[in-house]
Amino acid sequence: MMKGKPRPAVIICPGGGFFSCSDREAEPVAMYFASLGYHSFVLRYSTYFTGGLEMPDLSKPLPLKKESIYPNQIRQLGQAMLVVKKNAEKWLIDPEKNGVCGFSAGGHVASLYATRYNEPVLTDYLKASAKDLKPAFSVIDYALTDYHLLDADLRNKENSPMDYAFMKASNVAYAGVEFPDENLESEISPVDHVDSDTPPFFIWATATDPLVSPIHSLRMAEALAEHKIPYEIHVFGEGGHGLSLSSQAVVGAKSDINSTVAEWTNMCAKWLEKNFALDLPAKSAFEIMKEKEENKC
Amino acid sequence: MMKGKPRPAVIICPGGGFFSCSDREAEPVAMYFASLGYHSFVLRYSTYFTGGLEMPDLSKPLPLKKESIYPNQIRQLGQAMLVVKKNAEKWLIDPEKNGVCGFSAGGHVASLYATRYNEPVLTDYLKASAKDLKPAFSVIDYALTDYHLLDADLRNKENSPMDYAFMKASNVAYAGVEFPDENLESEISPVDHVDSDTPPFFIWATATDPLVSPIHSLRMAEALAEHKIPYEIHVFGEGGHGLSLSSQAVVGAKSDINSTVAEWTNMCAKWLEKNFALDLPAKSAFEIMKEKEENKC
Repeated sequence: MMKGKPRPAVIICPGGGFFSCSDREAEPVAMYFASLGYHSFVLRYSTYFTGGLEMPDLSKPLPLKKESIYPNQIRQLGQAMLVVKKNAEKWLIDPEKNGVCGFSAGGHVASLYATRYNEPVLTDYLKASAKDLKPAFSVIDYALTDYHLLDADLRNKENSPMDYAFMKASNVAYAGVEFPDENLESEISPVDHVDSDTPPFFIWATATDPLVSPIHSLRMAEALAEHKIPYEIHVFGEGGHGLSLSSQAVVGAKSDINSTVAEWTNMCAKWLEKNFALDLPAKSAFEIMKEKEENKC
Repeated sequence: MMKGKPRPAVIICPGGGFFSCSDREAEPVAMYFASLGYHSFVLRYSTYFTGGLEMPDLSKPLPLKKESIYPNQIRQLGQAMLVVKKNAEKWLIDPEKNGVCGFSAGGHVASLYATRYNEPVLTDYLKASAKDLKPAFSVIDYALTDYHLLDADLRNKENSPMDYAFMKASNVAYAGVEFPDENLESEISPVDHVDSDTPPFFIWATATDPLVSPIHSLRMAEALAEHKIPYEIHVFGEGGHGLSLSSQAVVGAKSDINSTVAEWTNMCAKWLEKNFALDLPAKSAFEIMKEKEENKC
């Protein structure tokens, strides 16, 4: 039997455009959550490539591969959640306080999971109850949450051929087509699945993100507000895509360190603490001992 | 002739539901901007009552008064802007860096002005050019920016008779009717007037604001994003309406001090500094003197 008190846990989904899982949004983020006193796990969900960070040849159409197609990723996240809950006692995890977190494409996975955990696509497939699958919170970072934005978004990228080709290839990797139809858009849009059982969200993005429009994040917040689900959102005025912790721990160059954007980590820590504080005693053992000593005199 | 370098200036519009101008959102905020190195002014625009903080009798219909009716307030803000620019040289103000700021109802005035400064309602009335009237930035705090939300917003308040009566009376004070028609809603909705000439916005609100829905702020950010206007937005997860600086300087009780919400002041200072930094020399006079000394040796 392990000693100690159960703590919240977070399962992190890195980004990578559904082509791969980005290391920069994986273990360093897990270390950060661990430093706050939470258990953390990284889910390396199925992506188009399997051999680490790899990019598609954007000069030609991407051949289909079934492994990286929706809904594989949210089902894997569901399996991860069940593993964590099943081992809660052994691993000293509070089974009521397990959240999800995701960056970019991984933020899509985390938000789609957090809004559809109670639908047959997960409950039937995993033969699990909505209660067991429900995440306690969702932290999403520059995520894709409204695929109805796709057309306007792609039109915005026509002046940037690489971004345009990247997004189309990413859609093939995840949705099987360059341009999903309206039904499929809705299936993969978390904004369309928010209901009164959706857990609280912490959301952030950057206003100048050239790859994923921050309007995804604004619309997600609006959907949550309309359903009276607790949320917090920060869209920082400046910053590129994929900044992760935006610190020296994760960037490839000093120019990617943005101290304003890096504030999301403190804001998120405060938000988590307010909602999922560790269950600490009011007084430390030392204080209690001291009081006993004083009472003797 | 004054000595010193010109600095940016900000004109602050306090809130108060169009009934009065709240002191808590006036001078203490001006002191804060002044502490950052900016000139600051408070505009006490026309409101329903004139004798300081006064609340209407919500048990009966509010009689009409023309002084507090739109567009008086944005015209007064335009006059204030012209006074500031006219005296720029004398008051050591940089005429290219004058912004507006407003809280709640005052945030409505500041955002409506910042989106309509180039329309005849201001240019013709004030016989001034759009260039002279243009604010360099707009800082809006838990503001009303989308009157199309009004119906849904009021329905939400049906369980809270006082909030419901307050909002209806506030509409009478500002718009002349409890329920503006669609045309008037659009006239007084900043979200409908954003264009490519709109200045950058810094926006914040709280997700649990019981009086003014934070969806106003989310929609304002979305309108700015769609027109590619620089913006930053923070919707904090918890906090009531009208927190101002959310510090001991402005609250009536300790319970209204919210250290998370108070962070907006730091975020805003960083945002202003990035966009409107003071024009400081690269080296101080002391450094230059020291260098000269060292070169002598």
